[in-house]
Amino acid sequence: MLEQKEVKNQLSELYKEINETTENFIGYPVSKDFDYSELLPFLQFPMNNIGDPFGKSTYKVDSRAMEREVVRFFAELFRIKPENSWGYVTNGGSEGNLYGLYLARELYPKGIVYFSEDTHYSVQKNVTLLNIDYVIIKSQENGEIDYEDLRNMLQYNRHRPAIVVANIGTTMTEAKDDTKIIKGMMEELAIQKHYIHGDAALAGGFAPFIYPRPHFDFVDGVDSISVSGHKFIGSPIPCGVVIVRKENRDRIARNIAYIGSSDATITGSRNGHSPLFIWYAIKKLGLEGFEDRTIHSLKIAEYACDRLNEIGIKAWRNTNAITVVFPSPQESVCEKWQLATEKGQSHIICMPNVTKEQIDTFISDIENMK
Amino acid sequence: MLEQKEVKNQLSELYKEINETTENFIGYPVSKDFDYSELLPFLQFPMNNIGDPFGKSTYKVDSRAMEREVVRFFAELFRIKPENSWGYVTNGGSEGNLYGLYLARELYPKGIVYFSEDTHYSVQKNVTLLNIDYVIIKSQENGEIDYEDLRNMLQYNRHRPAIVVANIGTTMTEAKDDTKIIKGMMEELAIQKHYIHGDAALAGGFAPFIYPRPHFDFVDGVDSISVSGHKFIGSPIPCGVVIVRKENRDRIARNIAYIGSSDATITGSRNGHSPLFIWYAIKKLGLEGFEDRTIHSLKIAEYACDRLNEIGIKAWRNTNAITVVFPSPQESVCEKWQLATEKGQSHIICMPNVTKEQIDTFISDIENMK
Repeated sequence: MLEQKEVKNQLSELYKEINETTENFIGYPVSKDFDYSELLPFLQFPMNNIGDPFGKSTYKVDSRAMEREVVRFFAELFRIKPENSWGYVTNGGSEGNLYGLYLARELYPKGIVYFSEDTHYSVQKNVTLLNIDYVIIKSQENGEIDYEDLRNMLQYNRHRPAIVVANIGTTMTEAKDDTKIIKGMMEELAIQKHYIHGDAALAGGFAPFIYPRPHFDFVDGVDSISVSGHKFIGSPIPCGVVIVRKENRDRIARNIAYIGSSDATITGSRNGHSPLFIWYAIKKLGLEGFEDRTIHSLKIAEYACDRLNEIGIKAWRNTNAITVVFPSPQESVCEKWQLATEKGQSHIICMPNVTKEQIDTFISDIENMK
Repeated sequence: MLEQKEVKNQLSELYKEINETTENFIGYPVSKDFDYSELLPFLQFPMNNIGDPFGKSTYKVDSRAMEREVVRFFAELFRIKPENSWGYVTNGGSEGNLYGLYLARELYPKGIVYFSEDTHYSVQKNVTLLNIDYVIIKSQENGEIDYEDLRNMLQYNRHRPAIVVANIGTTMTEAKDDTKIIKGMMEELAIQKHYIHGDAALAGGFAPFIYPRPHFDFVDGVDSISVSGHKFIGSPIPCGVVIVRKENRDRIARNIAYIGSSDATITGSRNGHSPLFIWYAIKKLGLEGFEDRTIHSLKIAEYACDRLNEIGIKAWRNTNAITVVFPSPQESVCEKWQLATEKGQSHIICMPNVTKEQIDTFISDIENMK
C-alpha cells in the first residue's frame, strides 16, 4: 500500500513539473496547443497499425483507414497524386528520413549520400545504420547548403549515383535547401541515377502555405519527404509522416516479398494512436486552419525578431522562417525558456502556440534576469 | 459544421468497431487487460524522451527518470547488474532487435548474422537495413533452431565473427533457442569474436518467472535482449525495452560522439508516454504480479491444449509455452478470433487476459460454426 501511495506521489510530482516546464517553451519546435481529449477513450485499446497501411491485416484493432487519409492529405500538400504516392505515419522525422534513405539505397546500392553540415544529426546516424558512403557538404552562412560545394562534389563523383538529403528547414536556422536547384544540377551533370530526399521535419507542416512557395516538394524534384507530426501540428507522442513515390516503393516491396515479408515499413508493430491524432487535427483544422497557423507563426517570428533588434540583440531569420536566431542570452534565460544553444547561438521557434505576450515576457527576461 | 459531425460519427464508428474486435482476441500476443486511466492527463503534454535516457537533455517535458527505472527493472530480470547495463524504451520489439544488431555490427563489422528460419521477419528486415551478411539456419520441428545446422555453419565460417539472433519465443510456436548451448558452441569452436542477441519480444516478459528457468539471459550468454512492452505487460501503444551490455554501448557511443552526436538511440525524438505506461504497470504489478500473470497464462494454455485435444484437434505446445499450435480450423473461426495462420497451422496465445470462458467459447465455435 505504501508503494501505491508512492506511485501516486511520483505521478503528481511529475505532472506538476511537466505542467510548469511546458509553460515556457519557445526553444523547441513543438506545438503544445493540441486538444485530443475526444480521442482519449481509444487509449484503452491496444491499437496497432502493423505493416503496410495500404495492405491487408488480420489484426483489426487499428486506425489504418485514418492513416491512409493522413497519407493522402500530405501527398496532396506535397503535390504528388495520391495514386502515385505511398507513405505511412512514422514515429517521428528521423524514421521518415531512415525510410527515404533506405529506399534510395535499395534503388542505388552504390550511391553516395550528400548532405550539408547543418543537417540534423539523425541523418548521419541513419546513413551509418544503412552503411552508405556519404559526403558532408559545406553550408552557407544562413544554414542553407553551399550549392557550389555540392556541385563540385557531385561533379567529382559523377560515376556514382547521387542521393541528396535536402533540408526543408535546418534545425538551427530553418534554412531551406532549394530542391529545384539541386534537381537542376543532376540534370546538368547528367547524373541520371539520382534521388532527392527532403527532410522537412520542421517546415513540412507549413511550407505549403508560404507565399512564395519554397521549392521543396515532388513538383520541385524530391523523391520522398519526411515531416514531423508533433512539431507544427502537435501531438503528445512524437510522430511523423513519410511520403514517397509509389513506383520506388513498389520496386522495394518486390525485394521485400522476396525475403518473405510483405511488410514495407521500418518497424513491424506500429502505433495506431498517432495516426488518429494527426487525422483528427487535419479534420479539425482543415487547410484554412493550417494557413492561419502559418500566418500567425510568421507574424510572431517577425515581431520577436524586431523586438530583439530593438533591445540591441542582433537577431535575424531566414526568409519566411518561423525560427529567430540570435547570440545566446544569459544562462538563466536559456534555462528558463529551454533554449538549445550551439556555437554561441540560440533560437526561438515561433510555433502556432507562441503568443506576443510570451515574446514580451521573454524580452523582459533578457533585459532583467541576472 | 457538417464536417465536424462527420468526424464525430467516424470516431464513434471506429470506437464501436474496435471495442468489438478487441473482444475476441486470442490470436495475437497482446495483453488488453491494462488500465492506464490514471495516466491519461499526461496525454495533454508533448512528452519527449529525446536521446539517451541516462544522458542530459535541455528538453524537460519527459519521463526519463521513470524510463531509467524501467531499464533497471528489466536489467535485473535479465540478470545483469544495472551498473553494467544500458538500455532504453523502444517503439517495439523490432527496434530493440535493430539496436542489438546495430551494436553487434559496430563491434564486428565483418560479422555474419545467424538466425533460424522461424525467426520473426523483422530480423531479416533489420539485417537488410544494416547491410550485414547473414545465414539462415534450419529449424527443428518445434520451431527451435537446429543446433547441428548452426554448428556446421559456424564451423564453416570460423574465420569471421559470429552474431547469433536467438529466439526467446518464436512467433509461431514460441520455441526458445537455448543461448547457453549457443554460447558453448562459440567457445568450443574458438570463435572469440561473437555476439548473441536475444529476440525476447514475446517471452521476455514471463521467461524470468518460469521454472525451470529457460536459458535466455545475460548469465546464459546473451549480449543484448529486446522485449516488447505491449505484449505480456500490455500497452495501448506498441513499445518495448532493449537491454545491452554497457561496455559495448560505450564503445559505440564513442563512435557516435565522433560523428558529432551524443544520441545513442535509434530514433531522435522518443515517446515519453510508453515508458510511463510500463513504469506504472511494473509498480502496480510488482514481481508477484508478473509471476501471477505467468502462472495464469501457463494454466490457460494447458487447458486450451487439453480441450482442443479432447475434441480431436491435434494441438500441442512447447514446454512451458503460452502458445498453443494446431491445424487451422474453418475460416469463419479464424476470422472471428483473428487467428494468424501459416502453412495450415494456427495458434492461440494465452495472454494474461485470456480466460477459461473464452477458451470454452472458442472450442464451441470450432465445433459449431460453419
